[in-house]
Amino acid sequence: MTSVGPPPDRSGSRSLDPHLRRYAARAAGMTASEVRALFAVASRPEVVSLAGGMPNLTALPLDSLSTEIADLVSADGLVALQYGSAHGLPELRDQICEVMALEEVRGHPDDVVVTVGSQMALDMVTRIFCDPGDVVLAEGPSYVGALGTFTAYQTGVVHVAMDEHGLVPEALREAITACEAAGRRVKFLYTIPNFHNPAGVTLSVPRRAEILEICARHGILVVEDNPYGLLGFDGQTYPALRSMDPDNVVYLGSFSKTFAAGLRVGWTLAPHAVREKLMLAAESATLCPPTLNQMIVSRYLATHDWRGQIKSFQQAYRERRDAMIAALEQHLPDGCSWTVPDGGFFVWLTVPGGVDTKAMLPRAVTARVAYVSGTGFYADGLGSRQMRLSFCYPTPERITEGVRRLSAVLSDELELAATFGPINQRPGSGPQVPAPDTA
Amino acid sequence: MTSVGPPPDRSGSRSLDPHLRRYAARAAGMTASEVRALFAVASRPEVVSLAGGMPNLTALPLDSLSTEIADLVSADGLVALQYGSAHGLPELRDQICEVMALEEVRGHPDDVVVTVGSQMALDMVTRIFCDPGDVVLAEGPSYVGALGTFTAYQTGVVHVAMDEHGLVPEALREAITACEAAGRRVKFLYTIPNFHNPAGVTLSVPRRAEILEICARHGILVVEDNPYGLLGFDGQTYPALRSMDPDNVVYLGSFSKTFAAGLRVGWTLAPHAVREKLMLAAESATLCPPTLNQMIVSRYLATHDWRGQIKSFQQAYRERRDAMIAALEQHLPDGCSWTVPDGGFFVWLTVPGGVDTKAMLPRAVTARVAYVSGTGFYADGLGSRQMRLSFCYPTPERITEGVRRLSAVLSDELELAATFGPINQRPGSGPQVPAPDTA
Repeated sequence: MTSVGPPPDRSGSRSLDPHLRRYAARAAGMTASEVRALFAVASRPEVVSLAGGMPNLTALPLDSLSTEIADLVSADGLVALQYGSAHGLPELRDQICEVMALEEVRGHPDDVVVTVGSQMALDMVTRIFCDPGDVVLAEGPSYVGALGTFTAYQTGVVHVAMDEHGLVPEALREAITACEAAGRRVKFLYTIPNFHNPAGVTLSVPRRAEILEICARHGILVVEDNPYGLLGFDGQTYPALRSMDPDNVVYLGSFSKTFAAGLRVGWTLAPHAVREKLMLAAESATLCPPTLNQMIVSRYLATHDWRGQIKSFQQAYRERRDAMIAALEQHLPDGCSWTVPDGGFFVWLTVPGGVDTKAMLPRAVTARVAYVSGTGFYADGLGSRQMRLSFCYPTPERITEGVRRLSAVLSDELELAATFGPINQRPGSGPQVPAPDTA
Repeated sequence: MTSVGPPPDRSGSRSLDPHLRRYAARAAGMTASEVRALFAVASRPEVVSLAGGMPNLTALPLDSLSTEIADLVSADGLVALQYGSAHGLPELRDQICEVMALEEVRGHPDDVVVTVGSQMALDMVTRIFCDPGDVVLAEGPSYVGALGTFTAYQTGVVHVAMDEHGLVPEALREAITACEAAGRRVKFLYTIPNFHNPAGVTLSVPRRAEILEICARHGILVVEDNPYGLLGFDGQTYPALRSMDPDNVVYLGSFSKTFAAGLRVGWTLAPHAVREKLMLAAESATLCPPTLNQMIVSRYLATHDWRGQIKSFQQAYRERRDAMIAALEQHLPDGCSWTVPDGGFFVWLTVPGGVDTKAMLPRAVTARVAYVSGTGFYADGLGSRQMRLSFCYPTPERITEGVRRLSAVLSDELELAATFGPINQRPGSGPQVPAPDTA
C-alpha cells in the first residue's frame, strides 16, 4: 500500500506550533529527546547498540507458539477478538499469582489488574495518587520511563542514593526529612529492588525490611517495580517487598522480560481498596487490555515449560553479562568503574572526571557503538559521568566488540581532556529518552 | 492453575480505605458505578442484553485469520513479540491512511499515532490539552467512556444539544458564548459525527462546515471520534470533519468495529505539531502499542477482503436495526419516541414522563432485558427519561424478544405512574458506566 495525501509541512518548529497556547500545563514537560535522532542512527546494523533494553527472544519456541496461537484463534476467536473487562481475564490473573509466588508474594487474583505492560500500571498508579507538585522518591539513577510518567503528571522526583546493596536506608530517611521540612508531600517511593534498571544492583534482604519500616512509619506508599526479578543469573530470587508488607506496597509485574515484550502484558497487584481505583482509571485509559494477548500469555503459561524458558533466558543473559564484564576489564582505560549485576540487563558505568557521557555520545555513535548517557536516568541533571550499558540484546561477540569500540572513544576523550581540560561539560536537561524499542 | 494466598479482606468499605487521604484530587471522581452489580446480572445468558456495545464478530473468517496469524508468528515472531515504537508500525500507518481515505481524509502516515484502541487516543488528547477546570464541549448525550476520561483529567463537560441532524450549530454558539461569559476555558469540542453513540444520529454535511467554522473562529480545537463511520447500512459515507479542516481537527479512529475490538488497535491523526506531543504522552503511558496486534491488523488489511467484510458487517447490523425498529413500532406503549439510525450500533429511546429509566432498570433486568439508562451519557444528571438500546450483538430474534420484554416492563411502569404518580424520580449522579465488555 502506498501513502495518500501530500507530505505534511515540516517547516514548523515548535515555536510555530499553532496549538501552543492550548496545551495543558502537564504537556510543557513533554519534549522530544535531543538524542532521539542519534538513536535513529544508532539502530543501524553496523552500530553495536549497548543502548537498548530489548529482551533477547531468540530462545523462544516460535513454532509451537505459532501452533498454540492458531488454535486459540480458530477455537476461541470470538472471545479473543472481543472486548474483555478492565480487570483482565480471571484465568490469567490466577496464573499471575502463581508467577508472583516464586518471589514469595501471596496475592489474591481479585487484587490483580492486568495492564498494557507494567508501564501502564505505573501510569495508573501515578494517575490515582499524584497531584501536580507532589513528590515521588526514586532511586538515583532511576528507570527513564518512570521519570517520563512522573513528568507527565507534573510530579516532582527526589532521588535517593544507592550503593552496591541498593537503596541506602539512611539516604531515604534524609530525603523524607528534607521533603517534610520543605512542606513537600511525598506520595510514594518508586523502587526497582531487583537487578536495577539502570544501576544493575539488587536491594539486600535486610535493607528491604528497613526500607519498608521507614516508609510505613512516614505514611509513604511503596511502588515496587519488578520486571527482572526472575532473571537472576544463578536462578536466585529475593522476597518481594510486597511479600513483606502487603498493605503498603503496590506491586508492578510484567511478562515483557520473561516471555514477550511485544504482547504488552503487565499487571499490578494492589491493596484491595486501591485495586478498585486502578481498575476505574484503567477503564478510562484503554477500556480493557487486549484479550488475545492475555489469552496467548495464559495459554503459554498453561502449555509451555515457562520455568524452563526462564532458566534459558537466565543463561543467555549470564553469558552476555560475562562477555561485557570481561571486555570492560580488558579494554576500559584506568579510572572507570562499573557495577557487576547478578541478574537483569544492565551495567552502570562511571567514567573519569573530565568526560561528559552525553557530549561523547555522537563520537561513540560515529565509532559504531551506542549507549544511554547517565543524565537520562536522573530528573535533576546528575549522571553526566555515567552511562548505562545493556547486555541483553547483542550476542556476546558483538558486546565484546562494542566495548572495544567504546574504550577507544573513551581513551581519545580522556586524552583530549588531559590536553585541553574538560570539554563540553554542561548540566543535563532532564531525561533524554531513547525510543521505546531502544530503551 | 489455582489461586494462591488467602482471600483479601472484604470488610473494608470505602470509608475504611487506609489509602483514602493519599489519592490525587482526580481520583475523587473515579467511583464504581452503582449499576455495575446490575450489569453483572445482565450478562447472564437468559437476559437479552440491549446494553452492550460489543461488535458482532460471527462473520469474521476465523480459520483464515488463524492461519495468517500462525504464519506471522512463526515467520516474524522475533519482531511481533518485541517492543516497537510509540509511533506504530510504518506499514500499518500507511494502511490506516488508506482506510481514512474512504471518508475523504487525506492524512500523512507520519501524522498517525497508533494507540491501544481509540480510547487511549482520547486519553492522550485529553492529557496533552486539558488542565483541571478546563471545559470540553460534547454532544448531549455523549459517549460514556469519553465522559469517564474527561472526569479522570478533572475536565468539565458542557453538553451541546443535538437533533435528528446531529449537533445543533446554534446550540454550539450559545454554549461557547456562555463559557466565554463565565470565563471558562474551552479546550475542544468532542464530537461523534457519524451514527452517534448513544444518540444514533448523524451530523448533516452542511452543519459540518458550519460547526468547523464556529470552532475555528473561537479558537476551539475539534476532536472527531469516528469508530462507526464505515458502518452506514447502505454503504454511505460522509466527509470526515478532518477532511474539511485538517489543521484544527484531531481525528480518532479504530479497528474495533470494522475488524476486532479485542486487538485494541486504534489511532489518532493529528496536526503535525500535536502529533509529537501525543507520541511523547503515549510513550509515558504504555511505551508502545502491542506489536503483534498491529501486525495482525496490517496482515488482515493486506490479505483479506476487508472492504467486503465491512459490507457484511453493514448488512448484519442493518438486519438487527430493522428488527429493533420493527419491534419498537409493534410493542412500545404510546408516548415513546426513538431515533432511527442509518448506521452504527444504537437507538436512543425517550419514554413518557413519569418513568425514570435508571429506577426502572432493576425491574427490566428481573424481566430478563437490559439497557443503559440515559443518565450515563450526561455529565450533568440529564437523561432520566432516556435509554440507549444496542442492536449490535444479539440476533434479530433475540432483539425482538428483548424489546417485547422491555415494552411489558415499560407498560407496567406507566400504569403504576398513572395510578400513583411519578415514582422514583431522582436526579442522576453522573456517568453510570457498565463494564467495557458490556459498554
